[in-house]
Amino acid sequence: MQIECLKMTANKPTLYTILSPALLNLYDTHHSVVVIIDVLRATSTIATALYNGAETVMPVDSLEKCIALGKSTGGITAGEREGRVIEGLQHGNSPLEYHREFIKNKTLVLTTTNGTKLLHMALESGAENIVTGAFSNLSAVVGHLISRQQNVILACGAWKDRINIEDTLFAGAVVDRVKGHFQIDCDASSIAHSVYTEAGPDLFSYVKTKHASHYIRLSSYGLEEDIRYCLTPDTANVLPVYSNGKLSVG
Amino acid sequence: MQIECLKMTANKPTLYTILSPALLNLYDTHHSVVVIIDVLRATSTIATALYNGAETVMPVDSLEKCIALGKSTGGITAGEREGRVIEGLQHGNSPLEYHREFIKNKTLVLTTTNGTKLLHMALESGAENIVTGAFSNLSAVVGHLISRQQNVILACGAWKDRINIEDTLFAGAVVDRVKGHFQIDCDASSIAHSVYTEAGPDLFSYVKTKHASHYIRLSSYGLEEDIRYCLTPDTANVLPVYSNGKLSVG
Repeated sequence: MQIECLKMTANKPTLYTILSPALLNLYDTHHSVVVIIDVLRATSTIATALYNGAETVMPVDSLEKCIALGKSTGGITAGEREGRVIEGLQHGNSPLEYHREFIKNKTLVLTTTNGTKLLHMALESGAENIVTGAFSNLSAVVGHLISRQQNVILACGAWKDRINIEDTLFAGAVVDRVKGHFQIDCDASSIAHSVYTEAGPDLFSYVKTKHASHYIRLSSYGLEEDIRYCLTPDTANVLPVYSNGKLSVG
Repeated sequence: MQIECLKMTANKPTLYTILSPALLNLYDTHHSVVVIIDVLRATSTIATALYNGAETVMPVDSLEKCIALGKSTGGITAGEREGRVIEGLQHGNSPLEYHREFIKNKTLVLTTTNGTKLLHMALESGAENIVTGAFSNLSAVVGHLISRQQNVILACGAWKDRINIEDTLFAGAVVDRVKGHFQIDCDASSIAHSVYTEAGPDLFSYVKTKHASHYIRLSSYGLEEDIRYCLTPDTANVLPVYSNGKLSVG
């Protein structure tokens, strides 16, 4: 049974899931497509801005770089720390801010607590193929991974290295859709898939019932609408691909 | 609803789960009971040896210390690296080796890849209240945590920092039994509980179906019987408590 399984999967690329950025260094990012996941809310916002016509999104890992790049590019500066807008930036990290009338043909310079930091960690670790994923662009991510047939790392942004439910759920959703195409000898992927299976179709209720830490944080700021949007699949179904400091539609 | 929940739990101690030793530094071990979990097989072996009458188990983090302590105490040296017996030691890391006729009144000096190393990490991080847990002694651990009413960290040994299914399942089993007694604002605990819920009562089948990495490793050495034993609750229902370099029945 096991030998058959190994035979069946021997020629398939591998898929690993890291549930916290603190575990990124355990995996070979150089030869993999790395999917950066920060469902609440960085990667949902990135997909939404690009879907609504933003020319590019520039993810940066500090406030200072965000302000400097905003000046040099004429882009909109945006971001959060601890889930709140940072003083000195023009906009926050809510995907609902970036509707078409506002963002079309513009550049968004974005800095966030977890997702944009993880993207820079992946770059520093040697990753060359980076895309971003969230429920907003689930099908685009899945389609890309299946068609590319390269090793994959699903990299969850978590919350200051603490594992979170919503990124784990997204990793589980991807595993659910691509599992026939990859060799997945990775317990974290199985765990993410089990959580996604246990959650069932109503992800918002699951996250609420489980008192997910970031749900509690954001809902205390009145951001339940953001959470509902970020847990809905395929609302902004484009593939953000990273190249030379910029994310643009791949 | 949320406010009610917070009110209900405001006076309860906290419970956190770390799914990999690489995340231990994020939590306050000093003021918590730290449960070291390495289901396959260190903490199952520790519980079994003590249940069968071993005087103490001395967990050490290197082969050299294991041999030296074996000589100075007259204890049985045992351990594994990569799931196999280490050359130079007398015994391996299978709980089935430590039946009563063999281990009664003896000292076991044990070194393993993950569990005993994590115990030493916890000590170095300032932990003062350390116990070990596995399915073999699930009820003893649960009873201790409920009666003690102190903050808890469930610390999974994982596999070289990579999250594994079996330790996550045990954390989930503990959460399932103690959740009414603790404030659990910890996504990793919810994730572990979801995995345990999804697994259902037949943990062996779940671990096998999910191709858990350590299941594959151990079963390739012919150790399926060990795995079945290690996933069975309350076969060796004692509480190993760490003090001054030794684990003994608390």
